[in-house]
Amino acid sequence: MSTLYLGVDASTVARYVLFSGDPWRVEVLKQYLDNPRKVAFQREFNTYTGTYKGVEVTVTSTGIGAPSAAIALEEMYEAGMEVAVRMGTVMGLQDDLLGKFIIPIAAMRREGTSLSYVEESYPAVADVDLVNVMNETVNLMGAEYVNGINCTMDGFYSQMHDSRFSKESGRDMAGTFEELRRLRVTGIDMESSCLLTLGRLMGVKTCIVTMTTVLENLKETLQGQARKDAEDLLCRTVLEGIYRYDERNKDGRL
Amino acid sequence: MSTLYLGVDASTVARYVLFSGDPWRVEVLKQYLDNPRKVAFQREFNTYTGTYKGVEVTVTSTGIGAPSAAIALEEMYEAGMEVAVRMGTVMGLQDDLLGKFIIPIAAMRREGTSLSYVEESYPAVADVDLVNVMNETVNLMGAEYVNGINCTMDGFYSQMHDSRFSKESGRDMAGTFEELRRLRVTGIDMESSCLLTLGRLMGVKTCIVTMTTVLENLKETLQGQARKDAEDLLCRTVLEGIYRYDERNKDGRL
Amino acid sequence: MSTLYLGVDASTVARYVLFSGDPWRVEVLKQYLDNPRKVAFQREFNTYTGTYKGVEVTVTSTGIGAPSAAIALEEMYEAGMEVAVRMGTVMGLQDDLLGKFIIPIAAMRREGTSLSYVEESYPAVADVDLVNVMNETVNLMGAEYVNGINCTMDGFYSQMHDSRFSKESGRDMAGTFEELRRLRVTGIDMESSCLLTLGRLMGVKTCIVTMTTVLENLKETLQGQARKDAEDLLCRTVLEGIYRYDERNKDGRL
Amino acid sequence: MSTLYLGVDASTVARYVLFSGDPWRVEVLKQYLDNPRKVAFQREFNTYTGTYKGVEVTVTSTGIGAPSAAIALEEMYEAGMEVAVRMGTVMGLQDDLLGKFIIPIAAMRREGTSLSYVEESYPAVADVDLVNVMNETVNLMGAEYVNGINCTMDGFYSQMHDSRFSKESGRDMAGTFEELRRLRVTGIDMESSCLLTLGRLMGVKTCIVTMTTVLENLKETLQGQARKDAEDLLCRTVLEGIYRYDERNKDGRL
Amino acid sequence: MSTLYLGVDASTVARYVLFSGDPWRVEVLKQYLDNPRKVAFQREFNTYTGTYKGVEVTVTSTGIGAPSAAIALEEMYEAGMEVAVRMGTVMGLQDDLLGKFIIPIAAMRREGTSLSYVEESYPAVADVDLVNVMNETVNLMGAEYVNGINCTMDGFYSQMHDSRFSKESGRDMAGTFEELRRLRVTGIDMESSCLLTLGRLMGVKTCIVTMTTVLENLKETLQGQARKDAEDLLCRTVLEGIYRYDERNKDGRL
Amino acid sequence: MSTLYLGVDASTVARYVLFSGDPWRVEVLKQYLDNPRKVAFQREFNTYTGTYKGVEVTVTSTGIGAPSAAIALEEMYEAGMEVAVRMGTVMGLQDDLLGKFIIPIAAMRREGTSLSYVEESYPAVADVDLVNVMNETVNLMGAEYVNGINCTMDGFYSQMHDSRFSKESGRDMAGTFEELRRLRVTGIDMESSCLLTLGRLMGVKTCIVTMTTVLENLKETLQGQARKDAEDLLCRTVLEGIYRYDERNKDGRL
Repeated sequence: MSTLYLGVDASTVARYVLFSGDPWRVEVLKQYLDNPRKVAFQREFNTYTGTYKGVEVTVTSTGIGAPSAAIALEEMYEAGMEVAVRMGTVMGLQDDLLGKFIIPIAAMRREGTSLSYVEESYPAVADVDLVNVMNETVNLMGAEYVNGINCTMDGFYSQMHDSRFSKESGRDMAGTFEELRRLRVTGIDMESSCLLTLGRLMGVKTCIVTMTTVLENLKETLQGQARKDAEDLLCRTVLEGIYRYDERNKDGRL
Repeated sequence: MSTLYLGVDASTVARYVLFSGDPWRVEVLKQYLDNPRKVAFQREFNTYTGTYKGVEVTVTSTGIGAPSAAIALEEMYEAGMEVAVRMGTVMGLQDDLLGKFIIPIAAMRREGTSLSYVEESYPAVADVDLVNVMNETVNLMGAEYVNGINCTMDGFYSQMHDSRFSKESGRDMAGTFEELRRLRVTGIDMESSCLLTLGRLMGVKTCIVTMTTVLENLKETLQGQARKDAEDLLCRTVLEGIYRYDERNKDGRL
Repeated sequence: MSTLYLGVDASTVARYVLFSGDPWRVEVLKQYLDNPRKVAFQREFNTYTGTYKGVEVTVTSTGIGAPSAAIALEEMYEAGMEVAVRMGTVMGLQDDLLGKFIIPIAAMRREGTSLSYVEESYPAVADVDLVNVMNETVNLMGAEYVNGINCTMDGFYSQMHDSRFSKESGRDMAGTFEELRRLRVTGIDMESSCLLTLGRLMGVKTCIVTMTTVLENLKETLQGQARKDAEDLLCRTVLEGIYRYDERNKDGRL
Repeated sequence: MSTLYLGVDASTVARYVLFSGDPWRVEVLKQYLDNPRKVAFQREFNTYTGTYKGVEVTVTSTGIGAPSAAIALEEMYEAGMEVAVRMGTVMGLQDDLLGKFIIPIAAMRREGTSLSYVEESYPAVADVDLVNVMNETVNLMGAEYVNGINCTMDGFYSQMHDSRFSKESGRDMAGTFEELRRLRVTGIDMESSCLLTLGRLMGVKTCIVTMTTVLENLKETLQGQARKDAEDLLCRTVLEGIYRYDERNKDGRL
Repeated sequence: MSTLYLGVDASTVARYVLFSGDPWRVEVLKQYLDNPRKVAFQREFNTYTGTYKGVEVTVTSTGIGAPSAAIALEEMYEAGMEVAVRMGTVMGLQDDLLGKFIIPIAAMRREGTSLSYVEESYPAVADVDLVNVMNETVNLMGAEYVNGINCTMDGFYSQMHDSRFSKESGRDMAGTFEELRRLRVTGIDMESSCLLTLGRLMGVKTCIVTMTTVLENLKETLQGQARKDAEDLLCRTVLEGIYRYDERNKDGRL
Repeated sequence: MSTLYLGVDASTVARYVLFSGDPWRVEVLKQYLDNPRKVAFQREFNTYTGTYKGVEVTVTSTGIGAPSAAIALEEMYEAGMEVAVRMGTVMGLQDDLLGKFIIPIAAMRREGTSLSYVEESYPAVADVDLVNVMNETVNLMGAEYVNGINCTMDGFYSQMHDSRFSKESGRDMAGTFEELRRLRVTGIDMESSCLLTLGRLMGVKTCIVTMTTVLENLKETLQGQARKDAEDLLCRTVLEGIYRYDERNKDGRL
């Protein structure tokens, strides 16, 4: 029986699952796979399964925010997923990060969803082996990475970005950014700490691979072809990383 | 300039905005409008604006969970929205609710997003005038309603529904349901308390109109034509309610 | 057997109970009833039962603060109460509220007593039908009302009003008032959120009807005859509201 | 100018203030004073000032619960009080306490009012000198005392005593009592931790002198003449204690 | 069997146990005893047992911080300890405390260890009889004392003292000191609230006797011979206090 | 100027610092160094500096618990430390861990000290490069490791081990262990999460290398020569790991 929201099952999902935030990005992602087969597109969850250099990979989407990301992870786990990689673009908190990979080793859990699973003292930490392989792959592609700390939050317009309402209510984003930089946080997002926490609890190897396309509060962004190239590099890197992880796993090095 | 995620602006958004959870439901909803114009479909946010009995109404989607619902509400507020109605189906907590409307007067705030706006002691409460008009409209349509309390939570598979992982980790949903029934909670969802809290803070008149199509933990559900009819009734009722609210507002009764 | 603190029982308490904060106000209130019978005056709880236009009504007092108000509500529930209306004067947070009714639809739960019953995320929300009838009655009496949010707090001299000690310890009330106004709070008191929360949990229809006789931190007040008139209007309105609610209930409109 | 709720001022209040919970008890208490002068009886606050063996003493009431007790303490401090003694009967948690004095050296702060003044980690602790004098006075009167820990709570019918509603909602008092006994708590009340915390913060010497007239959940009580005698002993002891404290203070032993 | 960390048992531990923070101070302390016998020196726990004026006393160390202090207290309780006195030097928060004894009647529980035993609302309060005897003994020795409130904290360089890192991260100690002085806190340390809380729970009579050798953030300190004399006075006072407590206990005055 | 508690400074401390819990273990550890020079032994802090294969290394002790461990880390940072490795034996939570290395990638922050630095949502996570080098070194030595999650707690006898008092108060350790195993926690200790959190905040590369010598609640332990061998292996592995990290750093591979 296929799952409630994503409509997937063990016959349509691979051992490796790639998670994008945006369901429409999946339409791009699938083009990097050989023989992508459409599984389902329900609500914000768009799923294809195909192969990359012979390794079966499922690509899907989480939508925005930890509640829907947790549903995606849970249903993929129901369908047999063993390795989870979230990919996406990220808001970077340090000035020299634009165009670089952030592969966070862990994340601050400022969101409510993972708290419904386990107490706040539990670390949202990535799988070391998976992070190592992704680090190496980034270097192989000729790019740079940092293994920092992400901060995951629930409120985009209350904690990360100005809005009409944030201005009317005198809310100050700058203070948050300043504090996070002092805590050596490298990136901000809305799903990572939930995925890392749940992956750890489930025994699913999980990591996050992100490309910095925008700096805090939108003060600098990658645009046009530069952004297209960065996103292309991100897709190729993540899939190559999964391939290399699978190779290493097969020959017993993991 | 159109907004970051939904791609809307003051010229494309009406004073009245209807929020559905599922972006694909918006394709059905728009058919109840005259001259629906597509505004944008980005990520999980699908937006049309049209008229109902001459009143301009925008229909859009929130995706699953409070973080994306808050983004939708914030960007619609940016674009000038004054009245917000979330509609959808809901998991009912009492046995006699199947097929009935739940128009919650308030909600338990067991989600993290509204907490990023205001302390937990603040009530997530609907606009009384809007609730009154919706109540009357339900009766006019020959249907029944209750004005109960919803409980909004972040974790679908940690708090509301069994999964492979919930079973492996020995998590017990029954205890939660039992406790909520004792607290006289009528329905469970993932967005209401956030929308009610933010609407109240923004000064946007907000209410939730839901149809009970499933009872707790899926033990009873509306199926097939019964469900189609219920969803059709929900759409017609909400739009008629908005029309009646607008009439009343124009002649100064609100 | 009569109850521990109030000394009431099923034979001396009506279905409708009016709660005043001040036990001595009950001596005034009872004069609005026909044939008021003294039930008991123990500690801060002064109770009479009589009739208004043929409807049996009990008037009693809660004393100051949520702990004694909860005792009054619990013992009246023990004695069979089904509808509870707290009435009183209130400190208004907006400049144009003096002399107007505040009938809060909900309240912030900044007090400890209701927390001993149910978690903070639970809304302290009034009964909609009762609020609607009271709203209409205020208009019938030629007066004005708002249905805002009250903020209920435990500490009068730590949170609401300057004192010798607040000044010595450098406590700043102005910051609290400023914050509450930004949260669109209309009134401040010491009992409402507790009564609304408990009434909701018990299944007792509950609402609060208050007259604004003083603005924040005592900066403007109704004095002399104006205050007497306002209090007289409050008494007549609440009793008339109960009568109208009873009528509506009898002919099946509730 | 006299204070807002109690109607007292520096000219009508003594350096020593005795607090009773019940305003009507003050009518009994005043009979132990020479030349008691009525100060005011407003709301639940009934105040007299007189002398005992030449020492000027004010007796007043707090009403039930920490919010009104804090108001009484604040206004007496406004009027110049330097030493505060709360007296009353108490629910004892150990079987051999009936008829004995409990003079708690400190109290658990399970109430919300003192939390509005200072963080929970701050101890609600009595003044040692005052406790010592009261201990000695109890012995002088031929009675016994314990210096234990009280637990102060906001919810009488949610935490300390069964009610119709506690039974309907399946609330278990026995578990609380069992836990408190294991924590070596001797008595339960609704005001002590607030008075001790505020007195400490204000620099007012504060203690609590109570007589155990009832054991947990009312399972054993002092009745009739035994209770009258116990209450008489309590009054005489507390006043004698104040006299002795004053003597010691005058000759410089404090 | 001797205990896990301290290596003590019922045959090597006296009814009275003196706790020093510094294991090397124990080497000095033992010189005040007759016939001190080395029990064990494991990790930061250095233990001797001897007699003072015929009363058997054990001296040991806790190391820095509440976690190791709790271990010491637990293992001494395992070995039969009935009375516990922590002695040491303390950072005083008021200018006139240098060279005086602080014998705190209670402590703020800003540390995590006692929280693993009992909720934060529980008071960390000393035994009154023991405090009284120590007070009298200080006076007998011709010295002065205050019975104030200590504040116990876990983070020396995050809450009590500047460091390279505190400066780099812009942490402000002055604000904490200012706040604590306003709360009438007299001294700051890292163990007291834990020892007082556990002693109370265990039924072990516990108190803290400290000598103020340094004022806040090191701005004034006792140096050289003045410090030596102060520490000598502290040792003699505490042992004399234990002797006097034992005398009083034997003749039934406690 | 040398630091307050440890008595170290920039001239006596190396870039690499090894932390043992037990000050007396440092006497063993120093024997693995060439030319160890005693720096200071104050309180529970025993410090030597020497070289291993030409790399300068400082060995010191933290004492038991996070408060003293934070002091050690802070003062070493004051003296110029750039890389911190805590080593020690650990209580393992899974049956097959005896005699194996646990090199935790992160830790649960159930202690109060790191909370005085940064909010609980912040991850206590090790430095990836350092963990990788240590992992490889363990394999080089012919041993096995796991990179799990540690749980760090403040209360040894309240959370990790039975005692006279834990039994008297009916405290159940088994429930904690069962819960932690379900959370896939591999080891329990009293310092790790604090060191990892502070190291991360300071920008000091930090990791924990532990040898499992005892299983939960002491149910199985390494004894006699097996334990000696395990501890010898631990010392050699950690030092070799530091040497290899330094090599890699010098040739630019880090």
